[in-house]
Amino acid sequence: MSMITLTTDFGLNDWFVGSMKGVILSVNPRVTIVDIAHGVPSGDIRAGAIALSASCRLFPPKTVHVAVVDPGVGSARAALAVETEHYVFLGPDNGLLSLALSDDEVKKVHRIENQEYFRHPVSPTFHGRDIFAPVAAHLSQGLALRKVGPEISDYVRLEMLAPEVEVGKITGQVVYIDRFGNAYTNITPAHLGDIPPEQVELSVRGRAPFKLGHYFQETDPGHPIGIIGSSGFLEICVNGGDAAKKLHLKIGDPVIVQ
Amino acid sequence: MSMITLTTDFGLNDWFVGSMKGVILSVNPRVTIVDIAHGVPSGDIRAGAIALSASCRLFPPKTVHVAVVDPGVGSARAALAVETEHYVFLGPDNGLLSLALSDDEVKKVHRIENQEYFRHPVSPTFHGRDIFAPVAAHLSQGLALRKVGPEISDYVRLEMLAPEVEVGKITGQVVYIDRFGNAYTNITPAHLGDIPPEQVELSVRGRAPFKLGHYFQETDPGHPIGIIGSSGFLEICVNGGDAAKKLHLKIGDPVIVQ
Amino acid sequence: MSMITLTTDFGLNDWFVGSMKGVILSVNPRVTIVDIAHGVPSGDIRAGAIALSASCRLFPPKTVHVAVVDPGVGSARAALAVETEHYVFLGPDNGLLSLALSDDEVKKVHRIENQEYFRHPVSPTFHGRDIFAPVAAHLSQGLALRKVGPEISDYVRLEMLAPEVEVGKITGQVVYIDRFGNAYTNITPAHLGDIPPEQVELSVRGRAPFKLGHYFQETDPGHPIGIIGSSGFLEICVNGGDAAKKLHLKIGDPVIVQ
Repeated sequence: MSMITLTTDFGLNDWFVGSMKGVILSVNPRVTIVDIAHGVPSGDIRAGAIALSASCRLFPPKTVHVAVVDPGVGSARAALAVETEHYVFLGPDNGLLSLALSDDEVKKVHRIENQEYFRHPVSPTFHGRDIFAPVAAHLSQGLALRKVGPEISDYVRLEMLAPEVEVGKITGQVVYIDRFGNAYTNITPAHLGDIPPEQVELSVRGRAPFKLGHYFQETDPGHPIGIIGSSGFLEICVNGGDAAKKLHLKIGDPVIVQ
Repeated sequence: MSMITLTTDFGLNDWFVGSMKGVILSVNPRVTIVDIAHGVPSGDIRAGAIALSASCRLFPPKTVHVAVVDPGVGSARAALAVETEHYVFLGPDNGLLSLALSDDEVKKVHRIENQEYFRHPVSPTFHGRDIFAPVAAHLSQGLALRKVGPEISDYVRLEMLAPEVEVGKITGQVVYIDRFGNAYTNITPAHLGDIPPEQVELSVRGRAPFKLGHYFQETDPGHPIGIIGSSGFLEICVNGGDAAKKLHLKIGDPVIVQ
Repeated sequence: MSMITLTTDFGLNDWFVGSMKGVILSVNPRVTIVDIAHGVPSGDIRAGAIALSASCRLFPPKTVHVAVVDPGVGSARAALAVETEHYVFLGPDNGLLSLALSDDEVKKVHRIENQEYFRHPVSPTFHGRDIFAPVAAHLSQGLALRKVGPEISDYVRLEMLAPEVEVGKITGQVVYIDRFGNAYTNITPAHLGDIPPEQVELSVRGRAPFKLGHYFQETDPGHPIGIIGSSGFLEICVNGGDAAKKLHLKIGDPVIVQ
């Protein structure tokens, strides 16, 4: 009944994800492996952190979540194994896990160091295969977290810009653009507070302000609308269209709520 | 032994497919989930319908097929659960299921309405995760179809142009282009009837007519050939090449058989 | 506990990989299916052979590895089932399996001919679905290899250029470029022999020579470095960048080690 998820920037064109699965299944042939996303832009820790945090809580308790977006692989950055109230998270200590960890109660943080659970020889450029995969497989079989390495007290947090909140105005930014061109912002319902949704007015650079709604069809085809999206972020969308293309939105662009 | 397939336009770069799987496995951790295709062009109901109908019958009886290409998500379109002689199909009532349904005997059509089997809160923009995934998981565990909502008598059928069949001439069109550039038409062996294959002559805009064969190598490298493809459609192919590029074929282009 | 891996050039946009899985699971619903890679460039036997050989040994013994990059599908090329010391390999006899086979002791080579284990009717253009998938499923259930067809004595080997090795100089070439832009060469540690890594100097067309290191950060950001990669090949990389783009590297480009 054990489960492991994978979130990486390895893509699916090469054999890297398959290699991780082979190593995991060689240790624990009965585990269920689920892909969360492998198309995280190469080295984009923030996008990987968003993908993981937006989906990890949908899995059964005790799932082992493995995330590898690791531009510093082979350097001195630590490898983490973190136990939260509901899950175990493995990944490089570069902020990748930090958004997910901020949503669940962190119980213990360990540095993965015990080579007994690694695949050997360990490639300096593929810790996903040689460290994270086999350690995850052992943990999915019930290995105690303390066996993977020493407990540590802290971990790297992603510098995720919070929106600027003033009276009657919130200035956020685009943090992610999905396959459909929906532009996710760092603004959540918590930031909107008591403002009645029908009074909210959104604006992005070079565009007339538009409204907040519940689904795409509340605006005319081809027109923009704000939506509190399925992952809990305020998203800029276009009814029947690609908002990022249509509104020329890029990661980091300002989004203003009034 | 239960099985669920997924066919969507969610792509694999974001966490949407992984989210559906997390929800399914939280309800039924023992189910086998199989991806049919997630690269259906965004919002392209016809392409999704072709993918589903071309592959659904390859799965074991009682498989629950979930398809989500759903540009109208959140609007008034119904969510369907359909029992056929061999399978259960779930998807939006927008025609997406209709090609698959035309190939199997439809037993019962229900409208999915019973919120007891939904994930809550239901996002107005991600019914794949919050409605179709959990309902499919419950059905894969043996939930009776009538529990998901009221039986209805009809569903939306895709307007799939049938080819024009005259004596000695069939005028069809390109309906799908695959990864290799093979151009699928809406013409099937049934339309060809008794015409001996070796007498068939195919033509597309701006090209000399070419023959119908059984495999690519029956024509010279770089030359076009018609093939009754593995999914049962007449396909326009090029030996060793990409027919869509080479012949400048697009969805909707006419294909004439003489 | 049985396992089947899939390596193809089918991509994930269409329903071809899902179709193979449906056929496999219809024969053996308990088998675990793992994707190695489906983004092998269309018809690129060499890239498929590299993907398979770089990952197959990571899987548990007795895994059935299925590879389908098959531009000659439907023609006279044989379909192979090969038993090695640790695995079973299935694929077209076009060189695709040969790199993997050169790493494991080949016990028996059979030509797949017994139609009893095929899916019918057999499409001349999709042997992955109709021949390789069902035969793999039967083998994963314990079918004896000799049942699939007659034993044969040889198979097609990929013409993989070995590097030219002279005293103090090795001339190899780029054989694969991965998602990150790392350029894999046909040079391995065996070719480097006793040369101390710190004395190795690498060069590619139009660039100042650079060093061999262990991980990307041993050179300055944006600068090239050679790495003995995780798959055992000498790779040309750029710290924090895409080596293929930055250095304008293409498959076949010469790489010189001095």
